[in-house]
Amino acid sequence: MLNKMFDLAAYFSRNNTLLERCLTEYLDSSANARLLEAMRHSLMAGGKRLRPNLCIAACEAVGGDPEGAFPVACAMEMIHTYSLIHDDLPAMDDDQLRRGRPTCHVAFDEATAILAGDALHTLAFQVLASMKSKRPEHALEVIRIIAVAAGPSGMVQGQMLDMQSEGRTLAPEDLQHLHALKTGAMIEAALAAGAIVAGGSPPQVDAIREYGRAIGLAFQVVDDILNVEGDPAVMGKAAGTDRVRRKNSYPTLWGLEKSREFAHNLTQAAIESLSDFGFEAEALRTIARYVIERDK
Amino acid sequence: MLNKMFDLAAYFSRNNTLLERCLTEYLDSSANARLLEAMRHSLMAGGKRLRPNLCIAACEAVGGDPEGAFPVACAMEMIHTYSLIHDDLPAMDDDQLRRGRPTCHVAFDEATAILAGDALHTLAFQVLASMKSKRPEHALEVIRIIAVAAGPSGMVQGQMLDMQSEGRTLAPEDLQHLHALKTGAMIEAALAAGAIVAGGSPPQVDAIREYGRAIGLAFQVVDDILNVEGDPAVMGKAAGTDRVRRKNSYPTLWGLEKSREFAHNLTQAAIESLSDFGFEAEALRTIARYVIERDK
Repeated sequence: MLNKMFDLAAYFSRNNTLLERCLTEYLDSSANARLLEAMRHSLMAGGKRLRPNLCIAACEAVGGDPEGAFPVACAMEMIHTYSLIHDDLPAMDDDQLRRGRPTCHVAFDEATAILAGDALHTLAFQVLASMKSKRPEHALEVIRIIAVAAGPSGMVQGQMLDMQSEGRTLAPEDLQHLHALKTGAMIEAALAAGAIVAGGSPPQVDAIREYGRAIGLAFQVVDDILNVEGDPAVMGKAAGTDRVRRKNSYPTLWGLEKSREFAHNLTQAAIESLSDFGFEAEALRTIARYVIERDK
Repeated sequence: MLNKMFDLAAYFSRNNTLLERCLTEYLDSSANARLLEAMRHSLMAGGKRLRPNLCIAACEAVGGDPEGAFPVACAMEMIHTYSLIHDDLPAMDDDQLRRGRPTCHVAFDEATAILAGDALHTLAFQVLASMKSKRPEHALEVIRIIAVAAGPSGMVQGQMLDMQSEGRTLAPEDLQHLHALKTGAMIEAALAAGAIVAGGSPPQVDAIREYGRAIGLAFQVVDDILNVEGDPAVMGKAAGTDRVRRKNSYPTLWGLEKSREFAHNLTQAAIESLSDFGFEAEALRTIARYVIERDK
């Protein structure tokens, strides 16, 4: 089969239908009506579902049954959603619109949004620890990797650095470090976890992590570019906010043209890191191309 | 040895010295200076450390080496502290003082407090998943129990119910349900996790859970009593706040005398649930008595 024949839209659509069914089931296990409604408001708002799709694609790349990766994929989406809910709060980025809907604290209230984020955060670990696995040591390793990526050594630290750097001009290497923590760590963890849960060998997991570091950064560079020239109606969130908030971004540092070139080179590097894999890694390769071609 | 000879103050002091050493080590593994300072501000502010001590005591009650329970005990304290940081936020209880110190958002700022809470929350699961255990399935079960107790089916739901019930008068059974979720679930989980990590048998774990349900509720009744008649200088937090906020409490429902009697009966029930244990459960019995005699 030719590369061009991999239908990424159909792949995402098929996975996302299953993901949404799983996420709905996990949500129903909790109780308080208003809390659940707030969790559902943010978790079931669609979005690209990039992290869970990467997790499933990594599982398939090492020859695993994608079904085994769904609990991990759902947990990644819960953690990602909790982080968006908290980032959007008035004390943080004070955003009104997310995935085309009012943000959680706008649709409900601040206290409910804080708790809905907290609830999704814990529920992710509940889902991970409830995985049916013949190898409990794999499940533990997956939990550890995800916690390291999400916590004070990863995503939360990236968010803190991001806040501290508003209004200050960062050197390119500092901006890269910030993004490696804020978005890269969780993208890499989603991939590593998908490969580990499927029993991937250490060299396979390493190659997939390398792919993840490259596309994680490419994803952020493209996000910055879209913030300059994207269409808010297509993206479901406001554009131009980085400039208004004096946030550090690649277009500000390097201009649009050089930023596009950088993202392109990262995508090539990501695809090259998968050279030892066959067609089973075609979803990962196609996602790498999608990351720089997307318009939202 | 007679019951009276169990020196609980020395027991707490010995455990808390070790706990603080462990917590400090876990904190040093993270990075951003301001984030770390905010996490440390709340985590290392002392406090009773009741949950970790219960975890260690449950481990000992089933004949385990307390050392094995320390990672679990530290994780429980991290989750408890994250919940206090978020509960104290202006959008939630808007508290200024906690454990005799300014609350995290007062000492730092709201955004830092939200992130410090999030960071402690994730770090707890990182610590749990990094436990060295010969039985990874025990570690997974411990993570699952703690996540269920902390998340939308437990503590977070309790906090949501608490907010929703401010200004409304609850029936005694609804108040009990609220507390079972808000504080009881995590106390019971700390005990169950300590017993499981030590390889306790299912009947032992069940008996210790029963003890936990009783002292969890007794603890909350006494908290409500202290909110009426406690000394803020001793407690390190404000008194009389339940009345001002029209929060539901046992003294409001039943008066002080009946509330005291209820707490006393719960303590007796807790001790009776340990009737199959020998002196190795003496710490648990003594803690049950301490819960109703404490002044902070």
